[in-house]
Amino acid sequence: MSTYIQDGAEIYRQSFATIRAETPGLEALDPVLERTVVRMIHACGMTDLVGDIAASPGFGAAGEAALQAGAAVLCDTNMVASGVTRRRLPADNPVLCTLTDPRVADHAAAIGNTRTAAAVELWADHLAGALVVIGNAPTALFHLLDLLEAERLPRPAAIVGAPVGFIGAAESKEDLALRAPALGVEHVIVRGRRGGSAIAAAAVNALASAVE
Amino acid sequence: MSTYIQDGAEIYRQSFATIRAETPGLEALDPVLERTVVRMIHACGMTDLVGDIAASPGFGAAGEAALQAGAAVLCDTNMVASGVTRRRLPADNPVLCTLTDPRVADHAAAIGNTRTAAAVELWADHLAGALVVIGNAPTALFHLLDLLEAERLPRPAAIVGAPVGFIGAAESKEDLALRAPALGVEHVIVRGRRGGSAIAAAAVNALASAVE
Repeated sequence: MSTYIQDGAEIYRQSFATIRAETPGLEALDPVLERTVVRMIHACGMTDLVGDIAASPGFGAAGEAALQAGAAVLCDTNMVASGVTRRRLPADNPVLCTLTDPRVADHAAAIGNTRTAAAVELWADHLAGALVVIGNAPTALFHLLDLLEAERLPRPAAIVGAPVGFIGAAESKEDLALRAPALGVEHVIVRGRRGGSAIAAAAVNALASAVE
Repeated sequence: MSTYIQDGAEIYRQSFATIRAETPGLEALDPVLERTVVRMIHACGMTDLVGDIAASPGFGAAGEAALQAGAAVLCDTNMVASGVTRRRLPADNPVLCTLTDPRVADHAAAIGNTRTAAAVELWADHLAGALVVIGNAPTALFHLLDLLEAERLPRPAAIVGAPVGFIGAAESKEDLALRAPALGVEHVIVRGRRGGSAIAAAAVNALASAVE
C-alpha cells in the first residue's frame, strides 16, 4: 500500500505553499498577476517559469474585470477550453473554441493558413472585450494580431499568449508583446518555447477566482 | 503584417526535425519509444525532457499493440482525454475519463481519497489490456497501483505516468517504476515534477500512429 496525502484540499494548500516558498520575485507582482503566475507554475511543475512570464501592467486587472463582466473565453484549441474550470468562472462565461467548426477547413484552404488561424476569424461575434487564450498555435496568434491591426476584428480585453513549441512559438509571443500596446490590448506571455494548454488554461482559472 | 510559416504540415516537419537535431540520445531508443519521446518533447517545448523519461523495455511495443487491438484509453482527467487525437487511433478506441461520473464525489468521501483516485475504481470494465494515461493526479496513480497490487482491478497493458506538480507527483511516478514489473504492466514515466495533460496525451498520440 502506498502512503500519500489523500486530501485534495491539503494537496492544493501544500502545492501553492511550495511554489510560493521556492519562486523568487512573486512578491513584486500585483495580487492578480501573482496568483496567475503561481497557477501557471502549478500547471507545469516548474518554478523557473516565472522568469519567462511577462505581462503588461494592466493585465491582471483587465483580465479579472473582463471575466467578472461576463466576457467570453476564446481558446485556440479544445484542450485549452477543456482546462478551464467552469465552476470558477464568475459570470457563467461562455468558453468557446471554433476549431472544429465545419467551415474551418475550407476557410483555411482559402486563406492559405492553418486551421487554427482560420478558426480565429470565427471569433468576431464574441471578441469585443473577451479574454483570448492561445495555448498551442503560433499561427492563430500571428493571424489574430494581423486581423486586429487591420481592424477586421473587434478588440479583446486581454490575450494570454502561451503557444508552445519549436517553430514560431517564441516569435509569436514576442510579436504579441511588441504589438499589443498599440492595439490597446492587455497581455501576458510565456517567453521562449515553453507554454501549452495547461499553462494557458491555468492563467484563466487564476483570473476567474482568487480561491486556491 | 506578420511573416511566418502558414503551412501546418511544414510546421510539423520542421518542429520534429528541430527536436531530433537538438535532443541527444534518441537514436538509442526503439522506434516506437523514440517517436513517443519526440512527441512528448513537442508537447512541452523542452528537449531536456528526454533526460527525465524512463520506460520499461517493452513499453513501446505493448502500448502500440494494445491500441491496435482496440484497447481503451483510460485518462485521469478530461483534459488528457481532450488531448488524444481521435483520428490517429487505429481501432476507433474508446477514450474514457470517469472523473465527472455522478458516483465519484460520494465514493471519494467514502474511501477518504481524492475524486481522481475514486474515479479509477470505475475503470474496472475497461481496464484489462487498456492503456492508462495519468497526466495530472498523483493520487489516481498511487490508488491504481494499490488496487492492482490487491488484485481488485484487472491489469492494463501499459501505464503512461505523467502527473505534474509539487506534492506527490515525483513520488507517484517513482512508485510506478518500482512496482510495475511485479504487476506485469509496461510503463513510461516523466521523472520529477514535470508532466501534465499535454505530455501525457502526446504519448498516446505517438503510440497510436507513426504518422508525424
